[in-house]
Amino acid sequence: MDNIAAGIKVIAFDVFGTVVDWHGSVTREVNEMNLGIDGAAFARAWRAGYQPAMAEVMANNEWIILDVLHRRILDRVLKDFGLEAMKEDDRRTLNLVWHRLDPWPDSIEGMTRLKSRFIICSLSNGNLGLLTEMAKHAGIPWDCILSAENFRRYKPHPDTYLGVAKTFAVKASQVLLAAAHHSDLGAARECGLSTAYIERPWEYGRDQAKNVAPWDANNLHTTSIVDLADLLGCEY
Amino acid sequence: MDNIAAGIKVIAFDVFGTVVDWHGSVTREVNEMNLGIDGAAFARAWRAGYQPAMAEVMANNEWIILDVLHRRILDRVLKDFGLEAMKEDDRRTLNLVWHRLDPWPDSIEGMTRLKSRFIICSLSNGNLGLLTEMAKHAGIPWDCILSAENFRRYKPHPDTYLGVAKTFAVKASQVLLAAAHHSDLGAARECGLSTAYIERPWEYGRDQAKNVAPWDANNLHTTSIVDLADLLGCEY
Repeated sequence: MDNIAAGIKVIAFDVFGTVVDWHGSVTREVNEMNLGIDGAAFARAWRAGYQPAMAEVMANNEWIILDVLHRRILDRVLKDFGLEAMKEDDRRTLNLVWHRLDPWPDSIEGMTRLKSRFIICSLSNGNLGLLTEMAKHAGIPWDCILSAENFRRYKPHPDTYLGVAKTFAVKASQVLLAAAHHSDLGAARECGLSTAYIERPWEYGRDQAKNVAPWDANNLHTTSIVDLADLLGCEY
Repeated sequence: MDNIAAGIKVIAFDVFGTVVDWHGSVTREVNEMNLGIDGAAFARAWRAGYQPAMAEVMANNEWIILDVLHRRILDRVLKDFGLEAMKEDDRRTLNLVWHRLDPWPDSIEGMTRLKSRFIICSLSNGNLGLLTEMAKHAGIPWDCILSAENFRRYKPHPDTYLGVAKTFAVKASQVLLAAAHHSDLGAARECGLSTAYIERPWEYGRDQAKNVAPWDANNLHTTSIVDLADLLGCEY
């Protein structure tokens, strides 16, 4: 482990699902609106539109920030759930729920410890405004917020992973991507980054356990961000 | 004052000279190198190359980050001071002095208070890596680091000022630029931003007092960032 820690300068975090609990946060807020629907199913349907929406932006070689994509998906999902009558103001407020996601219980402690030894930044498909408001809401102690918006490419485009290394003038291998998704980590590895998997078994809710088995290709496999701080020797 | 505070969502800070004391920090580090030169004169000569270097980049419609410009200017200034013999490693280390600038005594307290009520971000011609390392060194509690690098345009290009408003999805007037330079504030005002002048009479050293007289065009005139926090009603 010590060898890995010695070679790392920057830890870049995936955010949705890795640092914050999007499913629990969106579910709770939707349920609190008393719309007569299953908040958890609504949250999953909204999130399911995320990858296809970004893929379409990339296929069209255009740039549209995630707040706008979230809103397009929301309008469709509201229709699917029979909520076409929702007013514009309510839609706008609900769309910003992604700015108000809560961190996993270990995230802030783990990141605060990692920050003492490494540069910690985001590498998220969320836009800069979203990530900034989320950090204020959740108390996330970023050294720097980096977003797909910086590079005008969504992950898994190589410009995003290599962009982190370029921003901090370090080698790709000196950037450790920490994420709860093997696909994200795999794309980062193809660019030469180091990778750490974070187990988030309840990302899709308590009733939909996720397979969090280790993949040998990752440099590190961890059960939480506190566990990552332990493995990298970042004490209190 | 209360009316101004109510209309502001984001405070964007100029950094060099406004938040950090570049002159004092560069002077001290150069003097500690015992090169047999006047560190203060060296710091001023280095800084004097800054505006022309950025103007050239903009005139050529290219994009080059400030770390690279600082190095080009450094090589020229070393020659002017008879220090052509300085080794590559030492040049590289010295060039990164801009990542290690100290804050003015009031900066951290003032910004911490302002952060409780507003989004506080940088809007600096320094590159993201420089600003991130500076924030770690100086303990600057940014909500978000924004740089000319985000917009691939140096201030005073309008894309930089308007880019802050766009990033946070607010009106231009809801962004308050806080800076120690009337020219920066004037360019921001032309884009519709609100402006606060911060007096930094010793920006160029104790022996070169700067004219810090108020300009009526600014929304606020302050003696420090703590004074700005007081004027905007941000208590401890």
